[in-house]
Amino acid sequence: MKKSTFLITAIFALILQSVNAQIERIEPPFWWSGMQHSELELMVYGENIAELSPKIDGIEILEVKKTENPNYLFITLDTQGQEPQKFKIVFEKNGKRKFSKNYELKERRPESAQRKGFDSSDMIYLIMPDRFANGDTSNDNHKDVVEKVNRDHQGGRHGGDIQGIIDYLDYIESLGATAIWSTPMNEDNDSTYSYHTYAQSDVYKIDPRYGTNEDYKRLSQELHKRSMKLIMDYVVNHWGITHWMMDDLPTYDWIHQFPGYGQTNYRMSTQMDPNASEIDAYYCMDGWFVSTMPDLNQKNPLALNYLIQNAIWWIEYADLDGFRVDTYSYNDKQGVAKWTKSIMDEYPNFNIVGEVWMHDQAQIAYWQKDSKIAAIQDYNSHLPSVMDFTLHDALSATFQVEEPSWDKGMIQVYENFVNDFLYPDIDNILVFAENHDTQRINQIYNSIEDYKLIMTLLGTIRGIPQLYYGSEIGMKGDKAKGDGDIRRDFPGGWETDTHNAFFAQGRTATENAYFDVTSKIFNWRKTATAIHNGKTTQYIPENDVYVYFRYNDNQTVMVVINNSKEEQTLELGRFKENLQDAKSAKEILSSSEISLGETLNIAGKASYILEIL
Amino acid sequence: MKKSTFLITAIFALILQSVNAQIERIEPPFWWSGMQHSELELMVYGENIAELSPKIDGIEILEVKKTENPNYLFITLDTQGQEPQKFKIVFEKNGKRKFSKNYELKERRPESAQRKGFDSSDMIYLIMPDRFANGDTSNDNHKDVVEKVNRDHQGGRHGGDIQGIIDYLDYIESLGATAIWSTPMNEDNDSTYSYHTYAQSDVYKIDPRYGTNEDYKRLSQELHKRSMKLIMDYVVNHWGITHWMMDDLPTYDWIHQFPGYGQTNYRMSTQMDPNASEIDAYYCMDGWFVSTMPDLNQKNPLALNYLIQNAIWWIEYADLDGFRVDTYSYNDKQGVAKWTKSIMDEYPNFNIVGEVWMHDQAQIAYWQKDSKIAAIQDYNSHLPSVMDFTLHDALSATFQVEEPSWDKGMIQVYENFVNDFLYPDIDNILVFAENHDTQRINQIYNSIEDYKLIMTLLGTIRGIPQLYYGSEIGMKGDKAKGDGDIRRDFPGGWETDTHNAFFAQGRTATENAYFDVTSKIFNWRKTATAIHNGKTTQYIPENDVYVYFRYNDNQTVMVVINNSKEEQTLELGRFKENLQDAKSAKEILSSSEISLGETLNIAGKASYILEIL
Repeated sequence: MKKSTFLITAIFALILQSVNAQIERIEPPFWWSGMQHSELELMVYGENIAELSPKIDGIEILEVKKTENPNYLFITLDTQGQEPQKFKIVFEKNGKRKFSKNYELKERRPESAQRKGFDSSDMIYLIMPDRFANGDTSNDNHKDVVEKVNRDHQGGRHGGDIQGIIDYLDYIESLGATAIWSTPMNEDNDSTYSYHTYAQSDVYKIDPRYGTNEDYKRLSQELHKRSMKLIMDYVVNHWGITHWMMDDLPTYDWIHQFPGYGQTNYRMSTQMDPNASEIDAYYCMDGWFVSTMPDLNQKNPLALNYLIQNAIWWIEYADLDGFRVDTYSYNDKQGVAKWTKSIMDEYPNFNIVGEVWMHDQAQIAYWQKDSKIAAIQDYNSHLPSVMDFTLHDALSATFQVEEPSWDKGMIQVYENFVNDFLYPDIDNILVFAENHDTQRINQIYNSIEDYKLIMTLLGTIRGIPQLYYGSEIGMKGDKAKGDGDIRRDFPGGWETDTHNAFFAQGRTATENAYFDVTSKIFNWRKTATAIHNGKTTQYIPENDVYVYFRYNDNQTVMVVINNSKEEQTLELGRFKENLQDAKSAKEILSSSEISLGETLNIAGKASYILEIL
Repeated sequence: MKKSTFLITAIFALILQSVNAQIERIEPPFWWSGMQHSELELMVYGENIAELSPKIDGIEILEVKKTENPNYLFITLDTQGQEPQKFKIVFEKNGKRKFSKNYELKERRPESAQRKGFDSSDMIYLIMPDRFANGDTSNDNHKDVVEKVNRDHQGGRHGGDIQGIIDYLDYIESLGATAIWSTPMNEDNDSTYSYHTYAQSDVYKIDPRYGTNEDYKRLSQELHKRSMKLIMDYVVNHWGITHWMMDDLPTYDWIHQFPGYGQTNYRMSTQMDPNASEIDAYYCMDGWFVSTMPDLNQKNPLALNYLIQNAIWWIEYADLDGFRVDTYSYNDKQGVAKWTKSIMDEYPNFNIVGEVWMHDQAQIAYWQKDSKIAAIQDYNSHLPSVMDFTLHDALSATFQVEEPSWDKGMIQVYENFVNDFLYPDIDNILVFAENHDTQRINQIYNSIEDYKLIMTLLGTIRGIPQLYYGSEIGMKGDKAKGDGDIRRDFPGGWETDTHNAFFAQGRTATENAYFDVTSKIFNWRKTATAIHNGKTTQYIPENDVYVYFRYNDNQTVMVVINNSKEEQTLELGRFKENLQDAKSAKEILSSSEISLGETLNIAGKASYILEIL
């Protein structure tokens, strides 16, 4: 090569490199071949990128969309029939090549499309990762994000991370949990309250204080090694005000904009109320959840598709087993249904549970896929699973009742199940006594007896039980003292902790008592098929004793919950339709055999889980 | 005629007469020609009547049914194409004529089949007839019934009657009522509590202490003269223990029988609960309401048909405009649906409102005809109208709230309407603040201000408003003191009453104030078509002020209810979607014109009914 030729080549390469640097992001950063939905819409962000035209050898570009912001291009590729490959996207101006960008279609895992999501055979352990265990102190602070660790501050970052969860998977598994739902871990660069992580600044990146994308994938792998599942907390309704896009939106209507600030009125019933005023419905759905969370506009097809692809990217990348979707019922109703359907079309056996925090069963059931109630309004969310918030309401009240009455006491729990027929898929419903947003159950009830009654219920009723980290060792926390108090650090999760509840010998006697009942119930539940998807027969509580049966062809389980303080005697003849001629049963909590005569005695504030022999 | 011939004839006549006397009852006692359902099933009761065979000249007997009790025959006639006529039913034994019984097919009123039932243009005045007015002291006691008048006894008979209602129709009409629902008036021969009259001893006969069947028909005629309507309170679930049939049941299973006594558990949710135990559902539906009310078995086709024909008989006989059906949701679900459908098939424009005393809108809506919720279980009650008991619950609580909160205050009323889409026919729903079984609204709220807010609501929301007698003069009554206390005598209804509230000059100033606001609202409502069947738009309450609009193409009404004690200022811009460019309105309560600028002030605990000009 002549010296001049080399120089020219070198200069040209430098120029190319410099123009190439014009592209700040392509998202999704990579994709996969063989997806059911073969169109891929790449968001390309870079200064004046809209002046350029993309070209790809061997892959058809179906459409190139520009917005009012010249720094964005949306390029739709047809990946149908494309093998896994790396290729170049060449950007041209007036027919002249300016630079190119590498892109990759990766190979999917075998059976990725058929992945089976979490279901009613699972028990979900809910973790706030900042508060569970600090497995890697080197990431407590990070240069890319503002808020630094401060364990003294209730609302600050405490340093918990992905490594901390991985470190204690033995513990979680020993509890009988088969799945983890962690509150979100994508980057949240808010200057305060970032541990909450629902105000995300980059939805393709794990927050460096939790770890890396690779760490998150590793968590998934470690879970799968144990046949456990990972459920990601996905936020489709809003991003954080520090999201990188907020400084330079692709379109004005990427988010819901208001003259001044428009906050949601939180009245989710306006989503279905035929009498709702337009303005109320508008503010509910389009208003911001809080001022740090710009409300995403899923009516904008580019924004919607960005969210769909982002969700699918995480499933495929991290090999996820499910989503928990935040503030599901605050979203644009049609938009979120499209988002949900797109994911379920791609993964027909996946599972997604939506946070539908309402207090009326018809209104909750409205949001479950194929709801007959929503069909009244020609609506179908396509959401497979919803949360049984009315059960949560009942559990928060029932066990405080001193004197049962017509509508107080165990009857409140009983009544939660009379409307089960409103739900199109009653087994696919999350049942829980508490979560990271509610009062701690051990704060409401300062007694292991009540805790045991509640776990008996959650471990045996229809649906997918969810436990909130810490309750299994009797952890308290008062929402009235601030959300931080219901999100206390798990004792033993920090090196400096003198008290370590991750191990039996580190736990107090009381903590072990809580742990043991939890572990006993949920480990038994793992193979109790009648609980997973059996039928239910319930009996009207008498003397504040609630009796129900779960059964299938192979197993019958009788559950007895005595919420009264006195010993009670049950006449077993009443339950003949379920007991038939049963003579004895194995009682799970006490690991003893109980004979079933004419009557059955049960102590005050006690429960039985009776596997009929 | 020879003497011997005369003697033989006379003896034969005597014999015939004596055998004829063997028939104690034929029910229905007469019928009509030209009914849509042309089969008529006559119940014939008499000693050993089953030994005889009936014959009729010119009318086909389709079937003769015998039961295990030889004292009953059920004869099915085909009345298709039969003119009104009197005819003889001849009873034979072994082919020999024993005696005959006269029967009549009467002529129907023109348009009887097309009668229009009560609807949302009506306001219903609910009366307990024993406690309203004693128009005929001669019937206070009657030889045929046990309980005698005793006005000193809260639970006794006080002497009110049909004539008393007729005497004060001017009063009822002046109130703005367009229909009367009286609690039942069929004979109830219980020795105590018979004024309640839900434990009937003869369902073809008005209790003589109220008057005669003819008096009841006259009440209907007097109402129709005023274009007012009569709604009968029909009890299909049970009869009284003193019902004549109880001593000699046609079949053992005419009523639900138990070893010992079986009482309902009152848990009506077992009607739809997919998890309900069979035994709980059985006791709910088949158990007796109280020990004096044998539970009718609508699964028995003879009993069901008896009840259907009895209901139709009263419609046709008394020219009724509707039924209110007691304890609707305690009935055998399929049986009561057949009963309802049979009536509605006969009178397609009739109306029937069922007492469905549940506290969940999905569970109430379940019972309305063509409910999509009931359709989940392949059920259709065919019941056109149900009662809005959840509104009743809200009205009983809302106005006591001192400090409004997320879920307390006017929001409770607002929230009652968000589920309107669950009801297949939202206009055909009874709205009420109280009835003869609930706490008196003026007992809950000791203030005309609260009463006015409640009447503003009842007078303007969707549905059919129902007022309970006496409340319009501020009558109180405490259910805790016994049901009799919420069923006090209307002052002036008895000759000896020194205080007569039927006339303005007899009423106290306070009574007149209650009366005037009631009368003003409901007389205005008579022609307010936007209220009758207009659309509704409601706004989330702010500062405990609830605003909604009712509107159709011709009329827009803005309703403002300020439940706070302070004056409030509304920014009218919020309501632009309904107000559009309205400049002024006629305020109904004050009969004044109000200009609509940027804001609207409203005093504490006040309401506006604004007819937009």
